[in-house]
Amino acid sequence: MSRPVITLLTDYGLSDDFVGVCHGVIAGICPDARVIDVSHGVARGDIRAGAIVLRGALPYLPVGVHIAVVDPGVGGDRRAVALRLADGRVLVGPDNGLLTLGAALGGGVVEAVDIGRSRFALQPVSATFHGRDIFTPVAARLAAGAALADAGEAVDIESLVVLSLPRPRVDDGVLVAHAIYVDAFGNVQLDAESADADRLGLALGREVLVGDAPARYVRTFGEAGVGDLIVYEDSYRRLAVAVNQGSAAERLRIVTDAELRIRPA
Amino acid sequence: MSRPVITLLTDYGLSDDFVGVCHGVIAGICPDARVIDVSHGVARGDIRAGAIVLRGALPYLPVGVHIAVVDPGVGGDRRAVALRLADGRVLVGPDNGLLTLGAALGGGVVEAVDIGRSRFALQPVSATFHGRDIFTPVAARLAAGAALADAGEAVDIESLVVLSLPRPRVDDGVLVAHAIYVDAFGNVQLDAESADADRLGLALGREVLVGDAPARYVRTFGEAGVGDLIVYEDSYRRLAVAVNQGSAAERLRIVTDAELRIRPA
Amino acid sequence: MSRPVITLLTDYGLSDDFVGVCHGVIAGICPDARVIDVSHGVARGDIRAGAIVLRGALPYLPVGVHIAVVDPGVGGDRRAVALRLADGRVLVGPDNGLLTLGAALGGGVVEAVDIGRSRFALQPVSATFHGRDIFTPVAARLAAGAALADAGEAVDIESLVVLSLPRPRVDDGVLVAHAIYVDAFGNVQLDAESADADRLGLALGREVLVGDAPARYVRTFGEAGVGDLIVYEDSYRRLAVAVNQGSAAERLRIVTDAELRIRPA
Repeated sequence: MSRPVITLLTDYGLSDDFVGVCHGVIAGICPDARVIDVSHGVARGDIRAGAIVLRGALPYLPVGVHIAVVDPGVGGDRRAVALRLADGRVLVGPDNGLLTLGAALGGGVVEAVDIGRSRFALQPVSATFHGRDIFTPVAARLAAGAALADAGEAVDIESLVVLSLPRPRVDDGVLVAHAIYVDAFGNVQLDAESADADRLGLALGREVLVGDAPARYVRTFGEAGVGDLIVYEDSYRRLAVAVNQGSAAERLRIVTDAELRIRPA
Repeated sequence: MSRPVITLLTDYGLSDDFVGVCHGVIAGICPDARVIDVSHGVARGDIRAGAIVLRGALPYLPVGVHIAVVDPGVGGDRRAVALRLADGRVLVGPDNGLLTLGAALGGGVVEAVDIGRSRFALQPVSATFHGRDIFTPVAARLAAGAALADAGEAVDIESLVVLSLPRPRVDDGVLVAHAIYVDAFGNVQLDAESADADRLGLALGREVLVGDAPARYVRTFGEAGVGDLIVYEDSYRRLAVAVNQGSAAERLRIVTDAELRIRPA
Repeated sequence: MSRPVITLLTDYGLSDDFVGVCHGVIAGICPDARVIDVSHGVARGDIRAGAIVLRGALPYLPVGVHIAVVDPGVGGDRRAVALRLADGRVLVGPDNGLLTLGAALGGGVVEAVDIGRSRFALQPVSATFHGRDIFTPVAARLAAGAALADAGEAVDIESLVVLSLPRPRVDDGVLVAHAIYVDAFGNVQLDAESADADRLGLALGREVLVGDAPARYVRTFGEAGVGDLIVYEDSYRRLAVAVNQGSAAERLRIVTDAELRIRPA
């Protein structure tokens, strides 16, 4: 039989032992698991960035138990949940919208339980580190074969918190989009797709304006000079803005949620 | 039979290939090992921070061979050791105090060997990278089943270097504690415990002063406003000082070893 | 049979999910693989630094499939290749010189294929993330037992891009060397070896000048005072310049490729 897969996505960073301790907990409960660190570099407390990373990564991860922890409300009254999706994946994390996009990608939630007082949690449960005390041990037990119904009390699927995202629009020949994720290189992912560029009549190679900044709509970095601003379809099939060998976020002072106006030059 | 566990805790950082090379050495000697990276973000050369992280993480790691390397004296005359603890764990690292707290947690050292000239080391042993040339290969051989006595020469347990830590005290209604660890979020762990807060008559929800700064003694972050200073029992069951969604270390300019005076407001 | 080994060396950093997604792809194709992260901290786009890290790490990695991705020309006309070496290792990455030093270490290339349109690639292949779409899935298929010849079209070994490196020389009693790699601690690796120091008549313990800065030629850090400048043979058996518990790169303002002049004081 194949080894169960557990994946971990958090905003814990790698400077401390938070991630290492979660690996230790998994190894103690489900020693056969193959554990994959999706990322621990989500901006601290940025639920939406975490949701977007989860959505982008999930199609490349084997079906398994997927832990996600971006949890500014830890220890408060937000619920902790485990969700079984239509495609067989299980998502484990706080019920704060973090799991919304991943759940939709997996065909939606078919079963949900509240694991806040799960019998699989480590006792005593601390007030500030549910990644170690609740999410990880519950996920490891599920990966080891436990039934979801044994992990906690059933939750009404309709009651789960849903993340809201801005929406792009084409307005008077201008694509109005939003920065939804900025990566470590300063590449800015938008909520628009290449179909939106098509609606604008943009063809590859064409000059465009991002706000007032001249740019070019290209297929890849190599088609632009060093330091040039480009608009392109990124590897997650979203429109993005970048500077070849530089940082678009810095150049244009773009932060998450910023509105960008893109039009043919 | 279950796979042997090897854990790694260092101050090597993740920018270079130091950690990756240690993983390579382990894979060559003990390919079945499950290797857990506890942390590689210990402040460079900070033996005490490493000792505290090891103590905090150990209870969450399966029994195995635990490598710890924070080793400013590498290549000098400090000893390299492997220690078998009463609870069955084996610690491997420099004999500079780094292993003291972990060893105590495991019931104390029951057997110690000097591995500085171990037959299990990689030859030639470099003068500056004993993590790769001594600690990792020796640990991998031990994980693969070698006897501790074969890894080096017996060492008198009483001769091992012991780490000294400051001690908190309650003085005239004031808890005098010390910053022993600052995490990446700027949360400051103290050497005091909630029992010390009890001795001070502090109840949850109560206003306190940290030096002159107003704070509140709470159970978790969610009980404070964004930017508020809090005192709380952290997930390692120590008292800690934090700013909700901010950095207490920055706000109060706390560095490791700083003395903090906490009293009811 | 032993588990196949796949190693990963990139300039992706660990802030985003790029590395995690590559692990996911491997787990889906070759679930038995032992995956080793050599480093993901190579300076963005610095092909030579990546080549040097690969050369330094390779001797400590079990024979396997070794992915290396430092790929500023991704999506352009540089080739993507998989190379079988005389010692049995397989290197997978862009044909931009990154693999040169590792290939030489492994006895040279005995078979090369162009994997730019490999049947093992993930479809559709993005224009900007060949690590995920080409290098990783091809490597995982090779680790799982596929023949190199099935991964792409044969390439003339003589046509592979070769990295050029500066060369040290001894000139009028002065060793003229070059900074080829700066690690996270600010230690500066040179292209010279201890044999070059011998030719200069340098003995251990001797005072030297690095440019105009006084230093000492020692075996290890512990032989120098805190803050002292040293020249030493590093753990990869190259001459290096360091500051004990400090940064030589910062102190001497050394950047990669800088020429250093070292002579007896």
